[in-house]
Amino acid sequence: MAGLETLRVRSGGPARLDRRDPAEDLGWDKEEARRSLQEEKGRLAELQTRLYARGKGAVLLVLQGMDTSGKDGTIRHVLSGVNPQGCQTTAFKTPCAEELAHDYLWRVHQRVPAYGHIGVFNRSHYEDVLIARVRRLVPPSVWRARYRQINAFERHLSECGVTLLKCCLHISKDEQLRRLRRRRTDPAKRWKYNPGDMAERKLWTAYQKAYEEALSRCSTPQAPWYVIPADRKWVRDLAVARLLRRALERSLAYGAGRRDLL
Amino acid sequence: MAGLETLRVRSGGPARLDRRDPAEDLGWDKEEARRSLQEEKGRLAELQTRLYARGKGAVLLVLQGMDTSGKDGTIRHVLSGVNPQGCQTTAFKTPCAEELAHDYLWRVHQRVPAYGHIGVFNRSHYEDVLIARVRRLVPPSVWRARYRQINAFERHLSECGVTLLKCCLHISKDEQLRRLRRRRTDPAKRWKYNPGDMAERKLWTAYQKAYEEALSRCSTPQAPWYVIPADRKWVRDLAVARLLRRALERSLAYGAGRRDLL
Repeated sequence: MAGLETLRVRSGGPARLDRRDPAEDLGWDKEEARRSLQEEKGRLAELQTRLYARGKGAVLLVLQGMDTSGKDGTIRHVLSGVNPQGCQTTAFKTPCAEELAHDYLWRVHQRVPAYGHIGVFNRSHYEDVLIARVRRLVPPSVWRARYRQINAFERHLSECGVTLLKCCLHISKDEQLRRLRRRRTDPAKRWKYNPGDMAERKLWTAYQKAYEEALSRCSTPQAPWYVIPADRKWVRDLAVARLLRRALERSLAYGAGRRDLL
Repeated sequence: MAGLETLRVRSGGPARLDRRDPAEDLGWDKEEARRSLQEEKGRLAELQTRLYARGKGAVLLVLQGMDTSGKDGTIRHVLSGVNPQGCQTTAFKTPCAEELAHDYLWRVHQRVPAYGHIGVFNRSHYEDVLIARVRRLVPPSVWRARYRQINAFERHLSECGVTLLKCCLHISKDEQLRRLRRRRTDPAKRWKYNPGDMAERKLWTAYQKAYEEALSRCSTPQAPWYVIPADRKWVRDLAVARLLRRALERSLAYGAGRRDLL
């Protein structure tokens, strides 16, 4: 378990994405990891039932990562054992007109999971300091203020009983290229291919810089960021599953014996 | 106009509700005030059309006050000239099960007006530090944390282009009794009579204390509280109308010439 803690971005410290190996295997064995994932999935399903029955506290898993980093795959592999009635996933796409007519956290707050539920954000409000910055959708004065606003928002959620777990799926530029090519050539993956992804890839360095700042400034004790090595899917899946299981355990332990539980 | 500034609770200072006269007339003449209200309503309608056409920035009027203090009447008298398409009012009642399954700001954030709109909150998130405190719906550690949470939330809204105006309709205990009796005896008002109001009235002192703390701790430069003398309806209406008109003017002036306008 100690290995997982090395993935955490220390509060106040730099994320140093450039020093983190996307192909890291955390000393795990692939076959063993597969078995472990099955065990973790069983535990997740059990813990989620307890959370649901209790109806207090919620767990929110935020997934971010470059195109092809495996956000969809992680959700499918890690959460397919959980009762969908207690799990709400939201894929945040380009904001619609109604969403753009409100502050950027408006649509995000609406999708925060109800007590008793696991929520999963496939992309999130972090896009508002990532693509919004890289693509210059808003001026610097606007996105710069957002780190503080996001920390305040997440602190509020945390104080109101939402256990936050934020995972950045970290892949290498080479691995992204391999995956994009496979999307183009593999008939089973072609539906995911988007020619725009190649254009986005040209902004790799700008995105890494934006991720570096977001992870460094918004990893807080109550809402930490974890950088998940994601070149190997089996490492990625097991790491996220274990972190999520721990988040569920924390949520269930939270307030045991406390009067001020929400 | 200087008179209106005396109604503002200075940021960081105590509200001192006990020293504010609910029957204050601000030196206004009743007949003149009626004419002025008509003029203000015309201006409000005009400014609201400009806000709507511009589609940037929003104005949020938060109305709080003891039972019978005139929240409904204020909305009717002040805003009846405004195009309802650009004005969204929300009366926050006892939270439903779905609302209780989320943090207390969840339902509030959803109802923040879209850019280009005026939003009116008839009661608000302040109930979560008023009735929630007086009726002990949550333990002290929970409601005490809320002042800071509310300030962070309102600061976020303000930074995202929402101009906040918070008005506490301040009536005297004697005036409340007269109004409650009238509700009981006047056939035209009887539909508003709720026997529970008399029980709530017994908690007058506890409510005043809760209001005093809420207004003192949550009057900030970006989201000030105004204490509106509300024993005389014509004073109350004109005061709120003028403050709202100024808020609209501020919203329209906001960002003129600024690149970072949202």
